[in-house]
Formats: sequence, C-alpha cells, structure tokens
Amino acid sequence: MLQNIRVVLVEPKGSGNIGSVARAMKNMGLNDLALVGGGRTQSFWARAMAVHAAEMLKKIRRFATLREAVADCGLVVGTTCRGGLYRSHNRSPREVAPDLLAVARRAKAALVFGPEDHGLSNQDLKHCQWLITIPAHPDYPSLNMAQAVMICLYELYLAALENPPQSAIVRAPAERVERLFDRMRASLLKIGFLDPQNPDHILLALRRVLGRAGLEEKDVRILIGLFRQIEWYAEEGWKVVQEKEKKGLKVR
Amino acid sequence: MLQNIRVVLVEPKGSGNIGSVARAMKNMGLNDLALVGGGRTQSFWARAMAVHAAEMLKKIRRFATLREAVADCGLVVGTTCRGGLYRSHNRSPREVAPDLLAVARRAKAALVFGPEDHGLSNQDLKHCQWLITIPAHPDYPSLNMAQAVMICLYELYLAALENPPQSAIVRAPAERVERLFDRMRASLLKIGFLDPQNPDHILLALRRVLGRAGLEEKDVRILIGLFRQIEWYAEEGWKVVQEKEKKGLKVR
Repeated sequence: MLQNIRVVLVEPKGSGNIGSVARAMKNMGLNDLALVGGGRTQSFWARAMAVHAAEMLKKIRRFATLREAVADCGLVVGTTCRGGLYRSHNRSPREVAPDLLAVARRAKAALVFGPEDHGLSNQDLKHCQWLITIPAHPDYPSLNMAQAVMICLYELYLAALENPPQSAIVRAPAERVERLFDRMRASLLKIGFLDPQNPDHILLALRRVLGRAGLEEKDVRILIGLFRQIEWYAEEGWKVVQEKEKKGLKVR
Repeated sequence: MLQNIRVVLVEPKGSGNIGSVARAMKNMGLNDLALVGGGRTQSFWARAMAVHAAEMLKKIRRFATLREAVADCGLVVGTTCRGGLYRSHNRSPREVAPDLLAVARRAKAALVFGPEDHGLSNQDLKHCQWLITIPAHPDYPSLNMAQAVMICLYELYLAALENPPQSAIVRAPAERVERLFDRMRASLLKIGFLDPQNPDHILLALRRVLGRAGLEEKDVRILIGLFRQIEWYAEEGWKVVQEKEKKGLKVR
C-alpha cells in the first residue's frame, strides 16, 4: 500500500528539503516522489540531506502541472496549515492515514505539499479531494515542508503496520475525474448556473463533495453523461423540445 | 506540561539541524533547548532553518556533559534507532508520550537526541531512564535528527491535547539519582558484587530497573541510606560484628 502512495512537491524552494523528503520517504517505506515545476534534485544539499536515500533523487519525476503529476491517482490529498475558505473539512494526518491506505490498496494515491513560503495555492487545492492539517501550536503552526512530509509518512507507516480495513470502492484516476470537472464547468456555465466572473467558487464546493464521496469509473461515466446531456440541452436540445412543444408532441 | 520538557541535543553536527529543531519545538509548543558540547547556534543555516523560531536560538543553554544538562530533570528519555544490548525496553514515541507528560506535570523532563552520525552512545544512554525508538522501515531506520525530534514533539503535542492522567509520583531530580548511583557503584565494588573490570554492565541493569520504577526523593534517601550502610559494613561494620561475635554478644 505504501508503494502506491506518491509524494508530490509543488515548486519546492530548497533543494536540501527535497533531499530530506527523499530520506523521510525511505525511512517510512515509500519510493514514489514527484516534483511540479522547479527544484534541484542533484545539488550538494539535496544529496547531503538524502544521505542513504540519494538514489531516490535520481528517480524523481518532474511534471509541469499538478494535474499531470496526479493524473493516474485515484485519490489526491493536499496539506495545508491554514483553515479558511476552500480549506474546511481538514482532518489530521492520524485521522486520514487509515482511509488513505485503504484507497492505496487498490489505486495510486498522491500526497501533495506546497512551496515552503506559502503552501498550496487555492488553484492547487482544487485538485485535492481531501485536506490534511497537521495539529500544531497556534503561535507558529507552519512546519518546515520536509517535517510536514515526515509526520504524514510516519502516520501512514504506523497505520500500515496496523493493517487497515479494505476500501469499499476503487477510485477512478484523477485525470478521468478532471475530465468530468471540465465538462461540469463547461455545461454549468452554459446553463448559467455558474457565475462567469467566478465559476470556481461553486465548482470547488462540488469538487469537495464528490472528492469526499470518491468516484468509481462507473460513477464518472454516469456523471460525464449527465453533464454531456446538460450541454446538449443548452446547445441543441432546447430547440428540439421547443419544436416538439410547438407541434403539440410529447417531449419524451 | 510541554514547557517542562527540555530537548537536549548531544554534540549536534549540523547547525541547520539545530535551527530545524528550534522551529519544530516552536511548532509544537516547547521552548527549553539545551546543547551538550559543540554546535553553532547563530550560523546562517541555524537561523535560516529556524525561520520564526530564531529567537529561541539565543536562549539555548550549553553544558559540558549530558549529566549536567539533565541535572534538574526528574525523567530523562533517550532516543535510539538501534536495539541491542542496553537498548531493550525501547518504546515508541506514541506509547511514551502520555507517560512523559504525566511526569512533566510535576517535574522537569528531558528528551535526549544523539549526534547525527552515530546517535547516543552507551555512555549517554546510562543517563536515560526510558528509551524511545521511532518505528521506521527496516531498510533505512535512521532518521535525520531534526525529523526524529519533530516526531517525538508531535506525539507529545497530540498527547497534551488529550490531557493525560496525572502521574502518581514526583520524580527526584536526575542529579540526586546520579549521587545514588555513584554510591551504589562504590559500595557494590567494595563488597565484590561488581566486576572491577566491567562494573557498568550490572549497574546499567540496575539503572534501568530503577529508571522504569521512577524514584521519588524519599526513595532516593532510603536507597542512599542502604548503600551507605553497605559501604560502612564493608569498611568498618564487619569488624564490629566480628568483635561482638567473638565476645558472644548479640549482633543487633
């Protein structure tokens, strides 16, 4: 299960931190590390901090966007030290760990960490179905990024030792779900359900609900079908219906 | 309770690690940091890694020996990633946290971390009544020192949120207990109970037992009295007893 969990670092600033993350991953039995954007993986500090996990630095994969980095993942979990808008429903790593492992028995899962200075953006959080906040003292709740990774992986490792229950569902890959959201966005804009100035506000709420639920492939197919139908209706269907009504025909 | 817990770093090598530890402490609500031996606390890396905990670096206290650094502590907890001789009875941070907090309600407690390259020596472990080992993957169980600190403090912080039960005993300061062990050593050497070539082997076992039990001030007084009596007997008492026996007197 731990092998199915990918750590994704978004725009990490310090290469020492990348090395520390590699070491923490090896300490806790993980090996799939991905970077979004920059970050030097072969610098002196990266290798110095990785120590006996330096070989993992060579296997790091780079992606241009978070969406690509998690495309094959059935579950994307973000980390944030802040609460607030778009950041409710946060849970602690200890609460999330057994649920995340249950998913990782059957599908790839991603654990996403933001840049050291300001964490994950709201844009990044869009892709996250669950959010983790590490409990910390209110005077200084912002952890070093590699420390935050370590705590999350430590909780996963302990939960794995306890052998979590099986997940009831097999989650569809994130990229499939993104296609669904693309279609949802387009269709809901068309019927005027979303504010064209700020469509993301409502979409995020929908993302969050569906993320919590977890979507299997068949759920994605059904929902894509639904929004395709909405789009069709907005473009063509209403004319057909009007025609039929004009002629006194039954619509269905 | 968290304020009563001192983090003690023995001969830390990297000043960046010292800064990371300061940040981790502030993240988890601790503020008493001590160094044994070297370590630069005002270097660029120390301050860079401490970020908003840089002011804590100025308050770090230095000690020449571990014994001095924990002299006023009622409980000394060591950390090690190795098992083996002198390292049995290790518990996980999660198991230890509530017990450590219960002690820290009434007395100072120390959490001791060894140098990055080889951890705490057997000499250092002598001073530790309890030992913590962080669960980790057998392929690479050695954590970065600052990461190990973070995991321990995170477990303490979570345990503190849960409000642990009160400890039944008020543990005597470590320096008092060291006096007891000094006397124990001297007296047991005198009566030939300890091997003069390797007195520490048995002494360590006794230290471990008494450490697990926890000694209150009155226990320390009684035990010091006991070993003083043994010493007296070995030096003088046996003569008195022999004299009395010779004269046919009752020994007591």
